[in-house]
Amino acid sequence: MSLVVVGSVAYDGIETPHGRTDRTLGGACTYIALSASYFTQAKIVGVVGDDFDPKDEELLRNHNIDLEGLERVPGKTFYWAGKYSNDMNDRETLVTDLNVFGDFNPKLPEAYKNQPYLVLGNIQPALQRSVRAQMNGVRLVGGDTMNYWIKDYRDELLATIREWDFLLINDSEARMLSGEHNLRKAAGKILGMGPNTLVIKRGEYGAILFRPDGHSIVPGYLLDEVFDPTGAGDCFAGGFIGYLAERGFDLKQGHIGHKELSRAVIYGSVLGSFCCERFGVDRFRSLTRAEIDARFDEFRAFTEF
Amino acid sequence: MSLVVVGSVAYDGIETPHGRTDRTLGGACTYIALSASYFTQAKIVGVVGDDFDPKDEELLRNHNIDLEGLERVPGKTFYWAGKYSNDMNDRETLVTDLNVFGDFNPKLPEAYKNQPYLVLGNIQPALQRSVRAQMNGVRLVGGDTMNYWIKDYRDELLATIREWDFLLINDSEARMLSGEHNLRKAAGKILGMGPNTLVIKRGEYGAILFRPDGHSIVPGYLLDEVFDPTGAGDCFAGGFIGYLAERGFDLKQGHIGHKELSRAVIYGSVLGSFCCERFGVDRFRSLTRAEIDARFDEFRAFTEF
Repeated sequence: MSLVVVGSVAYDGIETPHGRTDRTLGGACTYIALSASYFTQAKIVGVVGDDFDPKDEELLRNHNIDLEGLERVPGKTFYWAGKYSNDMNDRETLVTDLNVFGDFNPKLPEAYKNQPYLVLGNIQPALQRSVRAQMNGVRLVGGDTMNYWIKDYRDELLATIREWDFLLINDSEARMLSGEHNLRKAAGKILGMGPNTLVIKRGEYGAILFRPDGHSIVPGYLLDEVFDPTGAGDCFAGGFIGYLAERGFDLKQGHIGHKELSRAVIYGSVLGSFCCERFGVDRFRSLTRAEIDARFDEFRAFTEF
Repeated sequence: MSLVVVGSVAYDGIETPHGRTDRTLGGACTYIALSASYFTQAKIVGVVGDDFDPKDEELLRNHNIDLEGLERVPGKTFYWAGKYSNDMNDRETLVTDLNVFGDFNPKLPEAYKNQPYLVLGNIQPALQRSVRAQMNGVRLVGGDTMNYWIKDYRDELLATIREWDFLLINDSEARMLSGEHNLRKAAGKILGMGPNTLVIKRGEYGAILFRPDGHSIVPGYLLDEVFDPTGAGDCFAGGFIGYLAERGFDLKQGHIGHKELSRAVIYGSVLGSFCCERFGVDRFRSLTRAEIDARFDEFRAFTEF
């Protein structure tokens, strides 16, 4: 079933110990949609400038992504540039030019409004909320946020996630949002804020999925080489929600089992790991569903006992 | 089958955000032996001063630990004191008084020399090697080391681990020993140094076991509260080797399957997690095998998919 994806579409300049690129397609919406496209049709909502490259549009179309909601306005596309530390555990932002993204006010095409699945990339919580309000009877909604909104837009963020089924954040964001250092306690508090499903991403260490009745832990995939981690968290989100949409699940208690939920988290980990193998979105130029399923099976092999 | 455990027996002063204790039983040998004692008889080799408390001896005896190799000499027992940071990810050493441990030269009682299992806690590599040389036809030997020996006693350490079946170290030590940041590459190099089994401990994130033919990843157990992490790595070692000894496994290729190895790693994680629930060795005053097996079963529940 189709999935509406909202968030940034951008150009990124990236420097890692393995090389650099001055300008490559990026943005949360892009990464989520490309990852989810292996499971379901993604319909994106975003904004780009008149510098948006037809070749990038072609990459998205090749993944059967619906671009009706991709607004094109005069000006330049959002540009971000960053540099990773030698161990790639830290990155420094060098440039953030919001450009046309500064006035992003997502409006859903009519054909999007009755879709059952909605994932909201990391944007202003009020905008995330306005998108949610434009949907008619959405079956499953969730998304991402970041430290900036948690710290300075807390009330808006709380009003937004109150209407979500799942929240996907990293461990430091979970600690900041809950005020608890211990992840079990942090998760308990966050599950009281609205979502019945919380996925805490831990980078190379994998992820933990919390529900009111228990949790699942999924380790990270061990890559031979992390080429560029940009977008890995968004690809995780795309794999997670993509799998749920493909199977037609919602997240209501009793509607989905613990093992199915773990599989969704593993597909998230799988997509995040592929993302790191090349610069930017490059891995998605060749990635196949068969490769994704083969890596899923590897998870079974290295975790079973 | 019995297990010989060699290492420090100490008194520790510990301060964590949850409280402090000026003097409690500690030391790698103590933690390893207590953890392994739930699976097999542990025979310890260590040294204490004349201040060693009969009540502490009683705790060890209550775990059926053989104390014939515990030397008592005039003077004071090794004393260490440290303070943990608020998030418990860092600790500062406040006091290291080697005392009688400064002249530790492990000599194995005759009855120990024909035992099949040997685990060497973190001590000078040359001493670890001398213990190995005192054993007759040991079936499985391995142990721990630390950054200090890797950096300043590299040749001695390499000569020592060349004779080991397994090496158990944390991720930063694996990176230092191999000169590789990527853990897969680091493991490949270390497996070329002698041991056919490498366990890389990752603290709260669990552990990875590497063998020439593949790897297994085990997540860490999520505690509601980490009271005191002192000794958790040694308890991991005790649970790991204890389980192998209980089942009579060695680590030769073809003698043990991938799933059994993962179970040993999970028992390591289980013992490490219990250790963190109380100050020092306190959790071992009440811990039962049934609790250990119940937590092992929890691992199955939160990792299956």
